Amino acid sequence: MTPAQKARLDIREKRHTGTTRGLALGYVQCNLAVVPESVAFELLLYCQRNARACPVLEVCDPGSFEPKQLAPGADLRTDLPKYAVYRNGERLPDVTDLKSLWRSDLVAFLIGSGITFDGALERAGVPTDKHRWVLNSRLPTVPAGRFHGDMVVTMRWLTPEQAIIATQVSSRFPHNHGAPIHIGDPAAIGVDLENPLFGGKVGARPPDMVAVFWACGVTPQEAALRGKIELMITHAPAHGFVTDLEADRFCIP
Amino acid sequence: MTPAQKARLDIREKRHTGTTRGLALGYVQCNLAVVPESVAFELLLYCQRNARACPVLEVCDPGSFEPKQLAPGADLRTDLPKYAVYRNGERLPDVTDLKSLWRSDLVAFLIGSGITFDGALERAGVPTDKHRWVLNSRLPTVPAGRFHGDMVVTMRWLTPEQAIIATQVSSRFPHNHGAPIHIGDPAAIGVDLENPLFGGKVGARPPDMVAVFWACGVTPQEAALRGKIELMITHAPAHGFVTDLEADRFCIP
Repeated sequence: MTPAQKARLDIREKRHTGTTRGLALGYVQCNLAVVPESVAFELLLYCQRNARACPVLEVCDPGSFEPKQLAPGADLRTDLPKYAVYRNGERLPDVTDLKSLWRSDLVAFLIGSGITFDGALERAGVPTDKHRWVLNSRLPTVPAGRFHGDMVVTMRWLTPEQAIIATQVSSRFPHNHGAPIHIGDPAAIGVDLENPLFGGKVGARPPDMVAVFWACGVTPQEAALRGKIELMITHAPAHGFVTDLEADRFCIP
Repeated sequence: MTPAQKARLDIREKRHTGTTRGLALGYVQCNLAVVPESVAFELLLYCQRNARACPVLEVCDPGSFEPKQLAPGADLRTDLPKYAVYRNGERLPDVTDLKSLWRSDLVAFLIGSGITFDGALERAGVPTDKHRWVLNSRLPTVPAGRFHGDMVVTMRWLTPEQAIIATQVSSRFPHNHGAPIHIGDPAAIGVDLENPLFGGKVGARPPDMVAVFWACGVTPQEAALRGKIELMITHAPAHGFVTDLEADRFCIP
């Protein structure tokens, strides 16, 4: 059994219930987005138009919960530790599996996640275990149907040297948000450090560090909320799906 | 007026009627695929599942012939020199504009083309003006709805040194087919050199040259033919759409 298969089994059998950050390091992790078939074209178009934030790696056939390309045999209803449920513009309580929510008209999207290049960053000397937040920006996305809104971003404090290396390393992962979208001034892209979506309080800039921002896979969730989509189910933040793809085989050399 | 805008105007006003190869070098060129809205999700899914062959750069809203992101103000009905028309699995005679064929339910896709990195190859010392063919392979694509079939490939004869440089250069253009999919033996990927789709007779391998293969944007046309899609309109081979995007700003550094 590979580390990726073991991680999914541990999650399915509830031995692992926390975040997938750091789990099966070296395997591509994905964000999940599930919508009714009637919304699937709109979402796929939104992702295509905002591929930096929403790089689609696989779309399952309607009703299918098996990602045949990225993890044959896996079950998207059970193989993530926690799911977020959005109905008509409201976030409902999280659930730990989709067995009772699944329907034959649901279409599952797997979207590349920045967690994927954490392993490559670590090997290059860039720490990934702290100084990381998810925040709203005022960078507009390109709308598609009802999906619309601003880009959600991931921010890290890095030294200037780390920022350069992190730019080089993440550029090689265009299917996982790729290079940073901004380095430097949070206000220049409309980021308010006082109100992070996840990651706790940001606090003051550590001495000699710069803010580095990447497009974030939470973007389509915000767009679904704003568009009051009737139903969208996603991974809960940082509770992603571990695929069989080895990250190093997936990047640009 | 930029070279890209001038090229499109020359085409619209019928001053330029031939291939777009070599035209406005340095600007991203796209393949075109237009289908009825009822087929659009299937085609977008087919492209997502076979992104190496069909990297989608823009999808216009239903009925719109203006690619607002890649070339605001352009008109996809007139700004390509020649169009191919496929109906129910048959290729009809080419047309030189879409004015009489356009309908309010048509959805236009712009798909990255390998012509885009010709300029970068030339600057790196790899000639692009000869030894180039489009051929069927037996590499299967991942089907989506009715779209199915094998990958169409572009082949060039290059010296081993040029093959290495061409791999490096094209890797930086993942939205335009990216790196080669094969180097060496045509038979290994089921390519029959006797029957090219375009480019004339292949002939014998020139001494000291190797065959280098890229995924080709003709792939969705073949898939539409096999799937007997009721209507798909595309660019005629090598008669593409010149966008406003500068190729060097679009690639990975």
